[in-house]
Amino acid sequence: MAETANFDLAATGEPDGATLHRLGEEECLRLIAPGGVGRVAFGGADGPVILPVNYRVVDGAIVFRTRAGGVMDRDLRTGVRNVDIKIAFEVDEIDPVREEGWSVLVQGPFHQVTADEVRWTADVPVRPWAGGDRDLYVRVTPTRVTGRRVGPA
Amino acid sequence: MAETANFDLAATGEPDGATLHRLGEEECLRLIAPGGVGRVAFGGADGPVILPVNYRVVDGAIVFRTRAGGVMDRDLRTGVRNVDIKIAFEVDEIDPVREEGWSVLVQGPFHQVTADEVRWTADVPVRPWAGGDRDLYVRVTPTRVTGRRVGPA
Repeated sequence: MAETANFDLAATGEPDGATLHRLGEEECLRLIAPGGVGRVAFGGADGPVILPVNYRVVDGAIVFRTRAGGVMDRDLRTGVRNVDIKIAFEVDEIDPVREEGWSVLVQGPFHQVTADEVRWTADVPVRPWAGGDRDLYVRVTPTRVTGRRVGPA
Repeated sequence: MAETANFDLAATGEPDGATLHRLGEEECLRLIAPGGVGRVAFGGADGPVILPVNYRVVDGAIVFRTRAGGVMDRDLRTGVRNVDIKIAFEVDEIDPVREEGWSVLVQGPFHQVTADEVRWTADVPVRPWAGGDRDLYVRVTPTRVTGRRVGPA
């Protein structure tokens, strides 16, 4: 059986090594600033869920869209009632050939963008590839931003 | 402000549309079978965590490695005590230029591979890119496999 490289960035608690580097918050924010595709994790009826979403960074917050009534909406409504619920948002860039890459993890509370924030969201046009009505804007306010890079020292 | 496409696959509860397609379990398993880089989500001290890991599929289970004593280890030990704790494991392939791609979500309980399973893990060599001791094998037993694809009908 051929050996497979393991992009194991899980051990955030370990010190920097020859190939695993912790990223500072400033560099993390720089890496995710351009927006693009990230992955959001939240609690669901069948356990945790990870889903890719296109995101943008607006005023330091992660913004993405989803569909009202969808699986995330239900969870978001719970989040509205309980502001302590946090989600994870992750962006990475991985080069399997060179066996290097980076991963940034944003943690923080999330909530629907409310009616009085519509003007704010109007500056964040998003065109869902998946089509359909995805008129629910979600904002994640980062309370913790961490990152790690794997590659040459 | 330039418009950004939104790879919004979040609405798993909606019916198939012109561009959003649900994938059957068989196709999901076929897509993730080759192994590679996936992302695991689990509960952490500071809220949910998403981290990329390299994985393999062995006997229908997701297998990856992490470091004993790392952030995931702590959570895994909790999982060992409480077998009901589930995690999410996601694999995707996204083409931002063509605005299409797929995402497979595996949900299920996870646990450390124990001593009596060492022989089993010996068939799953993994070489961590990040280096260091990552002698903790983790297995996720899928109880729910779902997938979605965005692209032309």
